[in-house]
Amino acid sequence: MGRFLLLIFLLISISAAADRSHSLLRTVPDVAAPADAAADDRLYCGSWWFSVETNNARFWRMVPPRCRGFVEEYMSGDRYASDSYAVAAESLAFAESVRIADDGKDAWVFDVDETLLSNIPYYAVNGYGSKLFNETSFNEWVSLGRAPALPASLRLYEELLVLGFQIVLLTGRSEAQRKITEDNLSSAGYHSWRSFILREACDIGKHAVDFKSERRVELEAQGFRIQGCSGDQWSDLLGSSMAKRSFKLPNPMYYID
Amino acid sequence: MGRFLLLIFLLISISAAADRSHSLLRTVPDVAAPADAAADDRLYCGSWWFSVETNNARFWRMVPPRCRGFVEEYMSGDRYASDSYAVAAESLAFAESVRIADDGKDAWVFDVDETLLSNIPYYAVNGYGSKLFNETSFNEWVSLGRAPALPASLRLYEELLVLGFQIVLLTGRSEAQRKITEDNLSSAGYHSWRSFILREACDIGKHAVDFKSERRVELEAQGFRIQGCSGDQWSDLLGSSMAKRSFKLPNPMYYID
Repeated sequence: MGRFLLLIFLLISISAAADRSHSLLRTVPDVAAPADAAADDRLYCGSWWFSVETNNARFWRMVPPRCRGFVEEYMSGDRYASDSYAVAAESLAFAESVRIADDGKDAWVFDVDETLLSNIPYYAVNGYGSKLFNETSFNEWVSLGRAPALPASLRLYEELLVLGFQIVLLTGRSEAQRKITEDNLSSAGYHSWRSFILREACDIGKHAVDFKSERRVELEAQGFRIQGCSGDQWSDLLGSSMAKRSFKLPNPMYYID
Repeated sequence: MGRFLLLIFLLISISAAADRSHSLLRTVPDVAAPADAAADDRLYCGSWWFSVETNNARFWRMVPPRCRGFVEEYMSGDRYASDSYAVAAESLAFAESVRIADDGKDAWVFDVDETLLSNIPYYAVNGYGSKLFNETSFNEWVSLGRAPALPASLRLYEELLVLGFQIVLLTGRSEAQRKITEDNLSSAGYHSWRSFILREACDIGKHAVDFKSERRVELEAQGFRIQGCSGDQWSDLLGSSMAKRSFKLPNPMYYID
């Protein structure tokens, strides 16, 4: 019975964290929150993370306060690096199975933030996603051009170039940030991309999934075969003209629609 | 440097586990496997699980031998139950936002195995997915009709009925198993489904994602609006006529294409 109450509590508290606290209270009477369940941040936050990475949880605006420590530990410990390398390994195994034609049209699309470049230095001093996103301070960070490479992605990127893929960068960053982002990518070790697509003035305000879908449609219209796509957001991967295989990198710090 | 080698080793070992052991050996020279990395099953298997649940890892045929303990602990401990309730909470929060019309056409599609019913009693005595799937012995288990409900899903199911959704069951089980599966579902507490779709003779051999897509297309042709879909396999969720929102339940025991 204690376990039943624990689970009911989890159900409600996860729901509450998503700003929909009314959703179950109406239908689950006599709910008590056992102290030990309330204290089990590890279990709660692990399940929250599962919901986030599988795209079950959407439209969340910040990491639940009780999961700040969980996310910090995840991002700064071995697990984030290990998960990122697992993604790279699966990506490369698929890439090696692709028969590259000699027309220069086999493309791999990469997102930038938390995919090729890591903003951990920024988020480490901004609560690891536990505070509301501050566009001004994030753009200041971007303007420094000092984001390091995500090591697993840099390694994958190099391998894809060797295999003969055309690399397309497709980011939600704006055209105004092109120069600093190109400089940042170069200094982080990236090179030889075929195309680098940022948001133009007409794209500002669009949902990322729509903007990125439109640009993938254009790539296909130009004759590209989008074999693979790598991104830390599902909005990098879903929509129209999806890649033959899409690869989801971990990111429990923020959600982009 | 030790950490770099650790990560490279992880990259290779994860790849090897997926039966593609050649994939990186060719391109990563001078790789050594530090003893402590080899021993860190928890890190390795956590990343393997991330790959599986995000659909990065595909076409795997069994749990890597070193992850048998990880999967057993996950499935039999609090975490599987907690993750399943997190899925149910997200599903219900969405369901409550749907405006149900009075034409009886707002549908929610459920998979059966590891979604409504749990086969843990079977897998607990069959290595938790660490052995190759044995269709004969699994069908014997099915024929007993004794699979318990997944508690989180049963709770969600009840709530959806109250909200007015039409429940459609869409399973890879065969028509020959209809009667025993209906009896099993009833004894586990499920009732009042609108439609129960199983594989007919012509569907045998089809990929699950194709079979299920075809049937969702038919449902839409019949006027149903597929608002939600719940399944433990990505092949339950992806393809044609996808639900407005799809919800991925955890399952590190097996993969269905």
